[in-house]
Amino acid sequence: MLQPDPLNLVVLDAFRRHSPLVHCITNDVVQSFTANILLALGASPAMVVEPDEAEQFAAIADALLINVGTLTAIQAQAMHRGIEGALAANTPWVLDPVAVGGLTFRSHFCQQIIQQKPSAIRGNASEIIALAGLSGGGRGVDSTDSVVSALPAAQMLARQTGAIVVVTGEVDHLTDGERIRTVKGGSVLMTRVVGTGCALSAVVAACCALPGDRLENIAAGCGFMKQAGSIAAGQSQGLGSFAVGLLDALSGMGGRHEAD
Amino acid sequence: MLQPDPLNLVVLDAFRRHSPLVHCITNDVVQSFTANILLALGASPAMVVEPDEAEQFAAIADALLINVGTLTAIQAQAMHRGIEGALAANTPWVLDPVAVGGLTFRSHFCQQIIQQKPSAIRGNASEIIALAGLSGGGRGVDSTDSVVSALPAAQMLARQTGAIVVVTGEVDHLTDGERIRTVKGGSVLMTRVVGTGCALSAVVAACCALPGDRLENIAAGCGFMKQAGSIAAGQSQGLGSFAVGLLDALSGMGGRHEAD
Amino acid sequence: MLQPDPLNLVVLDAFRRHSPLVHCITNDVVQSFTANILLALGASPAMVVEPDEAEQFAAIADALLINVGTLTAIQAQAMHRGIEGALAANTPWVLDPVAVGGLTFRSHFCQQIIQQKPSAIRGNASEIIALAGLSGGGRGVDSTDSVVSALPAAQMLARQTGAIVVVTGEVDHLTDGERIRTVKGGSVLMTRVVGTGCALSAVVAACCALPGDRLENIAAGCGFMKQAGSIAAGQSQGLGSFAVGLLDALSGMGGRHEAD
Repeated sequence: MLQPDPLNLVVLDAFRRHSPLVHCITNDVVQSFTANILLALGASPAMVVEPDEAEQFAAIADALLINVGTLTAIQAQAMHRGIEGALAANTPWVLDPVAVGGLTFRSHFCQQIIQQKPSAIRGNASEIIALAGLSGGGRGVDSTDSVVSALPAAQMLARQTGAIVVVTGEVDHLTDGERIRTVKGGSVLMTRVVGTGCALSAVVAACCALPGDRLENIAAGCGFMKQAGSIAAGQSQGLGSFAVGLLDALSGMGGRHEAD
Repeated sequence: MLQPDPLNLVVLDAFRRHSPLVHCITNDVVQSFTANILLALGASPAMVVEPDEAEQFAAIADALLINVGTLTAIQAQAMHRGIEGALAANTPWVLDPVAVGGLTFRSHFCQQIIQQKPSAIRGNASEIIALAGLSGGGRGVDSTDSVVSALPAAQMLARQTGAIVVVTGEVDHLTDGERIRTVKGGSVLMTRVVGTGCALSAVVAACCALPGDRLENIAAGCGFMKQAGSIAAGQSQGLGSFAVGLLDALSGMGGRHEAD
Repeated sequence: MLQPDPLNLVVLDAFRRHSPLVHCITNDVVQSFTANILLALGASPAMVVEPDEAEQFAAIADALLINVGTLTAIQAQAMHRGIEGALAANTPWVLDPVAVGGLTFRSHFCQQIIQQKPSAIRGNASEIIALAGLSGGGRGVDSTDSVVSALPAAQMLARQTGAIVVVTGEVDHLTDGERIRTVKGGSVLMTRVVGTGCALSAVVAACCALPGDRLENIAAGCGFMKQAGSIAAGQSQGLGSFAVGLLDALSGMGGRHEAD
């Protein structure tokens, strides 16, 4: 296992003090885990999905997450309205393009909305390559490409959209089109619990609401998850206790004591 | 931490013996946790959401829960039909008005359905104040008002609707419009795991199906959750193990031994 | 507790080597747990629900699961399209007829789709009896009939549809219409955590994608779950830690060491 980067305590402290209200329009599978990951880090999650309300709430929230994992036609409407609300109110919004490339409906949808100034995009290597139009994507939700091989696509996508692009895997790579940051550490077990990537996208959205350099803030957010993964892997008895330990590690991160 | 009220073992025993079948039409985020909380206490959850089936099943179930956390137009139809089925069959139904006040679609919907004889309404202070028409509500799902400040709104709402109104927070306050009960204990960690409030509303619905004084039964139900929260907080390593411990504590409540 | 059948290590090894990609169109309550159970055993879950994409993805996946627990009209469309995609691509598909019998919409739907060559059907005794047209079903999701009493219905259904029919309960009974297999073990706690049956149906779907005798493969899959249930029950402090332990036991099954 690689040694995790030192924890960015300044960003962790900002995260907890600001407690960003993150409006998540995300897939059916990861709703609860995403909310609990945000809560463990000190953010405030809210899932609001009716189209009118999605537009209304995106203007109140500190950040909006759009995750297309279980996209439907009606959900696509809510996402369009949410993005409109976010843009009108200057709320940052983040795209998680789950399984883009191989599936037509979501691929068209993602190609449309990346024209609307996402603040960040987080995906695995296959998703980022597919979103940049450079290949056909992975098989389902798993990446079949390496993170490093996706870096040129990530940089192109960042320049085209203005977003920070985050390619996650064994080592995360982040870019604003010019600068590149890498985040090491974590555990392979994170790929064997559903929703760790989706939840990280929600953390990325929360990081976009913090003051300071957005690339550095998001890199710190990726670091929180990697470090929590390392800690949880060291203490787990299997995949069930690993997921529990991930939430424990995030809520106790930086020496915070969770008690009554 | 406040000392929890002594556990109401008579109601706990009735809860387990009757094992109420609770029809939950609830939000996407908390479905699994709500079901597991009901199961841990010995009740039987069922989520039936297609409009025709919702009406049909509400007549079979012992109680119906309506939670508007991720309300959509089609879900609103199912809820209307479920309430019709419940009223026709004399099945008690309970409203959890998540984030009412700040969001237009759900606010109109909640104002409509509280005319239809809910047996109980459970919310945080901001939600209860907003539902009573006395303010504009909180920000997202978190309360910005104190429980005590919501008591007049709760009493007014109870008298207008005929429901038991439950305002939950550091100390829960319950009223039927005349009598008031308070339930102490619990843990602040309960606010940092998604779905504890929503799941409590399902427990409140189950309590409405028990014989005896409904206000006392619901107060007992709130007490089960508070006591489980206290126990879990004392044993947890963070928010992940807290949620696990909450289910463990509920399933073992009153000295019950869970084994094969 | 009955002694579990010896673990079928040949099938376990095949399961992990093939890592079947299981397309799940399943109910809202169990999505995350289903995905994590599949991941714990080494399979790869994906939930794709938009009708066009459901058809497209069923052709890519190794198996398709159809679970009607929270069936809606739009979801029924996606399921029809998914089954068409599966049949066209020779992808095996599996039905979990949750609460069939008592509820009209899903009962009609299930009667329709069992004409379309399911590879397997997994349900409790009441569901299998109702699906075979022999009674009106249970009350909600719980079986009111014994597994043995459902065996004639299971055999009839297997002969009519060509599916392996799996009736689960204290002892699971499986039949292809001629042969019968029984799987013992497990724990009563499995009935008190939401989604164990639904997740088992996903495991059954994964088993349909393995080479070899399908009845034996599915019996082995039922055995994995029974054995994990026994192990988890022996170590749990209640229903929360039981669910965690179930995932731990599955991921460590057969002596596999989960670590980084």
